[in-house]
Amino acid sequence: MASNGEKVKVFTFSISPFVNRVLIALEEMGVPYDSQEVDMNNKSPEFLEANPVYKKVPAIVHKGKPLSESLVILEYIHDTWSSSPSAGTTLLPKDPYDKAIARFWADFVEKKFWKAGWRTTLTEGETQEEAKQEFIDSFLLLEEALRKTSGGKPFFGGDDFGYVDIALAPFIFLWPAVEILGDFKIPFGRCPHLSAWSQLVSQRESVKKILPSAEAALEYMAGVRKQALSTSN
Amino acid sequence: MASNGEKVKVFTFSISPFVNRVLIALEEMGVPYDSQEVDMNNKSPEFLEANPVYKKVPAIVHKGKPLSESLVILEYIHDTWSSSPSAGTTLLPKDPYDKAIARFWADFVEKKFWKAGWRTTLTEGETQEEAKQEFIDSFLLLEEALRKTSGGKPFFGGDDFGYVDIALAPFIFLWPAVEILGDFKIPFGRCPHLSAWSQLVSQRESVKKILPSAEAALEYMAGVRKQALSTSN
Repeated sequence: MASNGEKVKVFTFSISPFVNRVLIALEEMGVPYDSQEVDMNNKSPEFLEANPVYKKVPAIVHKGKPLSESLVILEYIHDTWSSSPSAGTTLLPKDPYDKAIARFWADFVEKKFWKAGWRTTLTEGETQEEAKQEFIDSFLLLEEALRKTSGGKPFFGGDDFGYVDIALAPFIFLWPAVEILGDFKIPFGRCPHLSAWSQLVSQRESVKKILPSAEAALEYMAGVRKQALSTSN
Repeated sequence: MASNGEKVKVFTFSISPFVNRVLIALEEMGVPYDSQEVDMNNKSPEFLEANPVYKKVPAIVHKGKPLSESLVILEYIHDTWSSSPSAGTTLLPKDPYDKAIARFWADFVEKKFWKAGWRTTLTEGETQEEAKQEFIDSFLLLEEALRKTSGGKPFFGGDDFGYVDIALAPFIFLWPAVEILGDFKIPFGRCPHLSAWSQLVSQRESVKKILPSAEAALEYMAGVRKQALSTSN
């Protein structure tokens, strides 16, 4: 049991990589939680109270206080439980510069990497080609970031599975869907570090426990793509 | 002089609210810095080396190490100089939940508030009406956030001019331009807390020193609007 008390309540939606970041972080830190799947077509008052601004998952409630936005929640988990005896890891590095670099790359996953992957799965024609190229470029930038910040160790930042790893990990299971729906191949051959990283991370207990299957991801993403294309045509 | 050494080099562009966040934070913390205005049409190799990913200002170099993205830099300034004797303030609160809430609202300024204001100044017709409404809605949400987190004190978070104040302050001088180019009035009457906050913040030494005039902002924004509309028509 983690110190610093009461169970965290997490509002979830099983396919969401943003939710899965929070769940993986709680697993890694040994923090007890209850999760509650949100019906996206019929959002409960309790959920809306937890995230009145964006009305999106993830949202958590801890000690009666609500919080949302996945990276904000990861920082909160770090600040609250890093020194807990049950914590298997510390999410963010101690050194202010290393910490800033970790924040920079987690933010990059948000701003560039996932958006390009998402656009790839929802568009066609020229727009999709542009999105694919941006996705591949982002992949190559993350490869370089991993090479530099790992210093020859397995994870972003070195030996410990931390903030950037957790920010990126939930996207691994979406990659086959992005490839299939975008009709292209992610250049893993040009990304040896990221390739080894994703294999290692896929086998991690917390990740195996939390992430849905690639098949479930593909089915969901194919449905969203179909709907997006029918609306835009 | 701040402890923790060597001067910070800041790559700037005088109208940028994102740059001005960094400069205001350095002023508030008593950190010595040199600024270098970037020619956006002819970016120097030194600047591109400081921000190879986004190629945007602000970027800083401290002790030979580059960093970019304004909120990431603010966190770095907090982590590096909060306990410095010259620091007039501490940017982020100590309590993990208060800290998370500050991060949430600074991120909101980024994701919603400034984007809606920017879109308002660059569009016309129905798109502009939608952007204006989103800007006004964001204003009302920030009013509520200020009311709640200030607890009757002047700033977001209470007595100290901190992270959210600094994230939002550089937008004050843009508001008249947004009103003029959007041909509407910001509902200050419905935002008494934000109204008092902006008057107080405008008079703060660091803010007066760093922010350009509302006239300079209007001239720049009008130019960008003209170009945007001529490209889209």
